[in-house]
Amino acid sequence: MRLSLAEVVSEIRPVEQAWRLKARKRLDDLAIPAGSLGYLLDLAEQLAAIKESMTPSVARKMVVTMAGDHGVVAEAVSAFPQEVTRQMVNNFVAGGAAINVIAEAAGAGVTVVDMGVAADLSDLANQGKILSYKVAYGTQNMARGPAMTRGQAVQGLEAGIEIANLLARSGIELLGTGDMGIGNTTASSAILAVFSGLSPRQVTGRGTGIDDSALDNKVEVIEKAIALNRPDPADALDVLSKVGGLEIAGIAGLILGAAYFRIPVLVDGLISSAGALVAKNLAPDSVDYMIAAHQSMEPGHQYMLQALGLKPILNLKLRLGEGTGAALAMNIVETASRIIHKMLTFTDAGVTGPERREDTAHHA
Amino acid sequence: MRLSLAEVVSEIRPVEQAWRLKARKRLDDLAIPAGSLGYLLDLAEQLAAIKESMTPSVARKMVVTMAGDHGVVAEAVSAFPQEVTRQMVNNFVAGGAAINVIAEAAGAGVTVVDMGVAADLSDLANQGKILSYKVAYGTQNMARGPAMTRGQAVQGLEAGIEIANLLARSGIELLGTGDMGIGNTTASSAILAVFSGLSPRQVTGRGTGIDDSALDNKVEVIEKAIALNRPDPADALDVLSKVGGLEIAGIAGLILGAAYFRIPVLVDGLISSAGALVAKNLAPDSVDYMIAAHQSMEPGHQYMLQALGLKPILNLKLRLGEGTGAALAMNIVETASRIIHKMLTFTDAGVTGPERREDTAHHA
Repeated sequence: MRLSLAEVVSEIRPVEQAWRLKARKRLDDLAIPAGSLGYLLDLAEQLAAIKESMTPSVARKMVVTMAGDHGVVAEAVSAFPQEVTRQMVNNFVAGGAAINVIAEAAGAGVTVVDMGVAADLSDLANQGKILSYKVAYGTQNMARGPAMTRGQAVQGLEAGIEIANLLARSGIELLGTGDMGIGNTTASSAILAVFSGLSPRQVTGRGTGIDDSALDNKVEVIEKAIALNRPDPADALDVLSKVGGLEIAGIAGLILGAAYFRIPVLVDGLISSAGALVAKNLAPDSVDYMIAAHQSMEPGHQYMLQALGLKPILNLKLRLGEGTGAALAMNIVETASRIIHKMLTFTDAGVTGPERREDTAHHA
Repeated sequence: MRLSLAEVVSEIRPVEQAWRLKARKRLDDLAIPAGSLGYLLDLAEQLAAIKESMTPSVARKMVVTMAGDHGVVAEAVSAFPQEVTRQMVNNFVAGGAAINVIAEAAGAGVTVVDMGVAADLSDLANQGKILSYKVAYGTQNMARGPAMTRGQAVQGLEAGIEIANLLARSGIELLGTGDMGIGNTTASSAILAVFSGLSPRQVTGRGTGIDDSALDNKVEVIEKAIALNRPDPADALDVLSKVGGLEIAGIAGLILGAAYFRIPVLVDGLISSAGALVAKNLAPDSVDYMIAAHQSMEPGHQYMLQALGLKPILNLKLRLGEGTGAALAMNIVETASRIIHKMLTFTDAGVTGPERREDTAHHA
């Protein structure tokens, strides 16, 4: 039976503080100077608390790359034409894209989902090469009206939840989010502007690489879309449907599903973080299950991470999407999981702990 | 026949600019927005140029953890007693230390080397569990005289070169440096102060976690060692022998050997970067073969990376050493190597490239 959005949102719980403390106690006993493994220790604590286990495995890894088109491309917001969304889905299926290569290096699978590509991809779906949860052939142009209906937004979110359910049942222990959709930095910046109250100018970047005048146009398009649609920041479904995207809905749903099924989820860059913002606004405790993969070069991303309260693992000046940052961070998350269950403590290893202050003075 | 330091230093060559350009041309053609894989593209270019190959493999990976003791621990510069160096070597051999767990997650081996531990480790060496290139039972106390003789420094460097030679012959394609030695942040900060001209106060940190008064003492000890020994910053062997360490000599030699055998080498944190500074001062072109694994929490490390002209891959607030940062960055370097030879170009993938400016204007 398909899980409803309302059911999932109402059931998401924060991770148990008792498990955080239990994990931290073991990490504090490891035979290293206190805290010297930095952020790996925080990740290990989070993984143990999510999985309620001192041996939290994240060996089975999957990146979910959600694809969708955007009516707002009619406003010339991207350096690439809309057909590139479909072409890149074919590239993902052929295995020659960045996400394929990076996920393979990480030992992770890639699941490609048609959430709303403006082309018929039923052949790929019938061949089992992609999942099809197509809600529409792209969104409507948000500069002229809502990007989608509220019903379509819910449909997109529930598709993401269903995918999390399928992957949880197949034994996936770590999820990563990814996106493909020409025009989707425009939707993501709009979502951020609405939730944060920051100006579109402040949160909008060059996406795939537009020039100064095209950037001015992109900012104006976002301003226009917000002024016209008046999305309500207190109503995440209203924001998602008016200025969001179908792949963003899928990503938000996947994250909610991950929280519901207690699977840690690596959030990729700008577009994935827009999905994470929607998820957080629907179910605030879902952030306990999120891990920020990287700090994107897109200027809005830092504000998203602040709003989510997440620290990025990597800062490699990526701005590609597809889930590449999430895949790249997976090995580090996996390493953190091994630290808590495979390293020896001072006692186990027969290593002398740090000297107390009196001892140090005596030593001198 | 054993390679001499002089021979290796005189034979180290910069990587070929022509290979950099050839690699960059392919990277520019990949089916992604220009530059959107950020620092991964720089790494891919460096790997291709080092290996003079458009399919540069770094799949066979080894971390070399060099251990040595420091006479300067008599001045109470560390929170841990000297015996911890030996105990940690045993922990490495038992497989329960951070470097074992992190290297395993990276698919890398760990080679532990006794460069100068102040204990008899011949049993471990005879059992083949560690390599022994012991130069002495620890250095002398640099606050009272030179840490070692010039001959010992050369012996340590040539040991590192020989290990690089052994590993090159065994097919290792990517090296990582690591260290273990109570007191070695003191030696590393002293090396940095001499080469950079920065004050010991500026470049000295808490190492394994000393308090404010112990930090003051550590700074004074470094000031005293430099004032007493007067190491000549124009003579790297003089610096290494007067205020260095045996594991630092081994690391510097390993890096020189990596450059000689054209193997990329991931430089870990503060202590490894002190070794890298020695290597750079002996053979400036050796930096072409170095990759900075991470930005350590130790305050001196940023100045070392500046002096080396290297950008760190990770910033995870690590300050452990052992080679943990190098091991953690290996998967990312390996991913970069795959990007250049496995990803498709726009033409290969049948993906439309970015629109020219006229097109974009027309689109609007």
